[in-house]
Amino acid sequence: MDAPAPDQPVRVEVGLGDRAYDILIGSGLVARAGAEIASRMPGIRAAIVTDENVAATHLEAFSASLESAGIPATAVTLPAGERTKSFEHLQQVVDAVLDARLERRDVVVALGGGVVGDLTGFAAGIVRRGMRFVQVPTSLLAQVDSSVGGKTGINTSQGKNLVGLFHQPGLVLADTDVLDTLPLREFRAGYAEIAKYGLIDRPDFFSWLEANWRDVFSGGAARTRAIAESCRSKAEIVARDEFETGDRALLNLGHTFGHALESAVAYDGTRLVHGEGVAIGMVLAHRFSARLNQCSPDDARRVEAHLKAVGLPTSMAEIPGALPDADRLLAYIAQDKKVSRGALTFILTHGVGQSYIARDVPASEVLSFLRENHPG
Amino acid sequence: MDAPAPDQPVRVEVGLGDRAYDILIGSGLVARAGAEIASRMPGIRAAIVTDENVAATHLEAFSASLESAGIPATAVTLPAGERTKSFEHLQQVVDAVLDARLERRDVVVALGGGVVGDLTGFAAGIVRRGMRFVQVPTSLLAQVDSSVGGKTGINTSQGKNLVGLFHQPGLVLADTDVLDTLPLREFRAGYAEIAKYGLIDRPDFFSWLEANWRDVFSGGAARTRAIAESCRSKAEIVARDEFETGDRALLNLGHTFGHALESAVAYDGTRLVHGEGVAIGMVLAHRFSARLNQCSPDDARRVEAHLKAVGLPTSMAEIPGALPDADRLLAYIAQDKKVSRGALTFILTHGVGQSYIARDVPASEVLSFLRENHPG
Ligand SMILES: NC(=O)c1ccc[n+]([C@@H]2O[C@H](COP(=O)([O-])OP(=O)(O)OC[C@H]3O[C@@H](n4cnc5c(N)ncnc54)[C@H](O)[C@@H]3O)[C@@H](O)[C@H]2O)c1
Ligand SMILES: NC(=O)c1ccc[n+]([C@@H]2O[C@H](COP(=O)([O-])OP(=O)(O)OC[C@H]3O[C@@H](n4cnc5c(N)ncnc54)[C@H](O)[C@@H]3O)[C@@H](O)[C@H]2O)c1
Ligand SMILES: [Zn+2]
Ligand SMILES: [Zn+2]
Repeated sequence: MDAPAPDQPVRVEVGLGDRAYDILIGSGLVARAGAEIASRMPGIRAAIVTDENVAATHLEAFSASLESAGIPATAVTLPAGERTKSFEHLQQVVDAVLDARLERRDVVVALGGGVVGDLTGFAAGIVRRGMRFVQVPTSLLAQVDSSVGGKTGINTSQGKNLVGLFHQPGLVLADTDVLDTLPLREFRAGYAEIAKYGLIDRPDFFSWLEANWRDVFSGGAARTRAIAESCRSKAEIVARDEFETGDRALLNLGHTFGHALESAVAYDGTRLVHGEGVAIGMVLAHRFSARLNQCSPDDARRVEAHLKAVGLPTSMAEIPGALPDADRLLAYIAQDKKVSRGALTFILTHGVGQSYIARDVPASEVLSFLRENHPG
Repeated sequence: MDAPAPDQPVRVEVGLGDRAYDILIGSGLVARAGAEIASRMPGIRAAIVTDENVAATHLEAFSASLESAGIPATAVTLPAGERTKSFEHLQQVVDAVLDARLERRDVVVALGGGVVGDLTGFAAGIVRRGMRFVQVPTSLLAQVDSSVGGKTGINTSQGKNLVGLFHQPGLVLADTDVLDTLPLREFRAGYAEIAKYGLIDRPDFFSWLEANWRDVFSGGAARTRAIAESCRSKAEIVARDEFETGDRALLNLGHTFGHALESAVAYDGTRLVHGEGVAIGMVLAHRFSARLNQCSPDDARRVEAHLKAVGLPTSMAEIPGALPDADRLLAYIAQDKKVSRGALTFILTHGVGQSYIARDVPASEVLSFLRENHPG
């Protein structure tokens, strides 16, 4: 008997006019990737960019899928980890794509997590002033967040993601099966971003997650549903504000604090991964909102309880090793990109699912808050 | 008595919808730069990027102009020359802009020739995913060509301008006086691009140049007129096809051969500067068109005669030093970005002012033509 055909994937459209594209979410999509790409972009060649971990687990199947669809492809495998989002590796990917003599209509494919996606999208955006780009996100974080919306970038000594561009993919293929090889810690980190959509403006989704998070972790329909709901949520915000001149900043809920913490540990993934920083950051954002009398302390406690239940860190004290002091953390925040004319911009909240952009948060308030919450 | 007020500059608008911007062309614009920028972008700070030659001649006046308009600015001075369009210097400019803590609405200013403009525009396009950008072109080539249209980029070992993006400036200030410090050789090189607009689709302009080129070289009204006509010509083509998916390729007249020659001398500006490559390339493009029975040999001779009259090189034999053989030149052409699915794309012509895009030029024809015209 034949194996059962994979379920039809869920389709989420990112509505960006002539740059609109599909996100397909479901089981078996790596095996079908070649066919999905070839049907949308006939006659192309491809360069696959991936990292060592993903190469070990999924590159062979992915390459085979392209080959059987008649797409000639070369692959570049980069070291895994946040430090790969550097000028050095950007140049390496650019060189590889040029050496493969790909033309503007050929495609650069990111097969990996957010690191591979951000770096590859940036490279695709600048080779020949913009090549086609396909995202095949393999981490939960990448499936629900970084692969959607066209933000690409690298880190520099001055901070995270300060250099990059907007370059939309032509297609996103989120295979929910590949998440089974993802370390649990990374799965949890991605879950933080799922929870974020609930906290931004979907209180019912947050309640659903509180009740069903175990099924999201174990896989199947609840996982696909959570990923699709997250993509829909992000796609909606991105369609409203592609270039982050307004509402898109809501997606930074938890990220101002989170990025400062990532800087504080020098992007050392053994101490803190992005989603963990976001989890702590979201708890801090709710507490900070409570301190500013914007939401009730109960909301902050509810958020903390849920993130703790799934196993995410919720306080700075849980980060192993010493942290820089509060003044230094504030300096990291001030260098972050959400600074406008000296005043600090934060995403605050009036309660679960009621986040908003606050543009004039006094640095002194942030500093006393950081001091109170600092473990040192 | 007060000094006479500078003449009103000529204004050319680049019509790109919500990214439309002005090019101002005329005398005294460096001195007025601060006022022109401040009136359009109130309250900003600036980073000025320039090169050693331009820093020595014009940076002081330019900085003073910004200062007197209340625009705080820092300056980065790069080595002069084509090799500065590299990943290394891109990173240097990016670092300088980030270290100056400029925000997204602040402005990065390119004060220099096409090298500074292309590199700086690229950096401005990727810092914080796109900062404001002002071009103050100081070479003739930059005033009539590279500062208009938003193409930015750098060179890599694989070829010229293969990496970059489209990032439109918010304002272009072309001060015709600064050209007086430009070496004559560079002025001539820029003139090649002026002649190009005539050759593409303005036969009357080409005839006017044949009659008036001496006045363009000596300055005054004829110079301003030639620069403005060139900007208008380029702006029109760019407005029709911002992202070079069609007509914009016409601007590559002479450039396919020209870039191959630049590669052949490894961008050694002592042997060949860009505009000289374009001059030789335009003569070759006309001869090649004649060989393919697309235009009369008389047209090719007329183009050659005019470019020779102004002192530009018109044949490969005039490039000092040995050139790689014809096969190698063809390889440079094939790696150039105007290659699509193996067939070579060339800009050919039916006569002066009648250029067109030919998408299926057989490589074998190019090779025999190169052999015939090769000096070795
Ligand atoms: N562009 C955006 O809009 C956006 C949004 C959010 C986050 N980000 C960026 O995303 C990055 C974080 O993404 P991430 O968490 O995916 O990091 P990541 O890419 O480093 O992946 C996390 C780890 O999981 C491994 N991995 C990925 N998929 C796997 C699989 N299927 N099986 C086994 N191992 C696998 C990776 O090798 C890595 O070690 C950060 O750089 C962040 O700035 C970007
Ligand atoms: N972006 C585009 O659309 C476009 C179009 C055409 C050419 N280009 C690029 O432009 C570059 C060539 O531009 P370029 O010819 O201006 O080269 P350039 O910037 O190297 O300038 C030529 C020389 O003149 C010097 N110089 C410039 N202004 C001066 C002044 N006022 N006084 C004294 N010296 C001065 C420079 O220091 C340099 O030595 C190439 O890299 C080419 O690829 C880009
Ligand atoms: Zn995030
Ligand atoms: Zn040119």
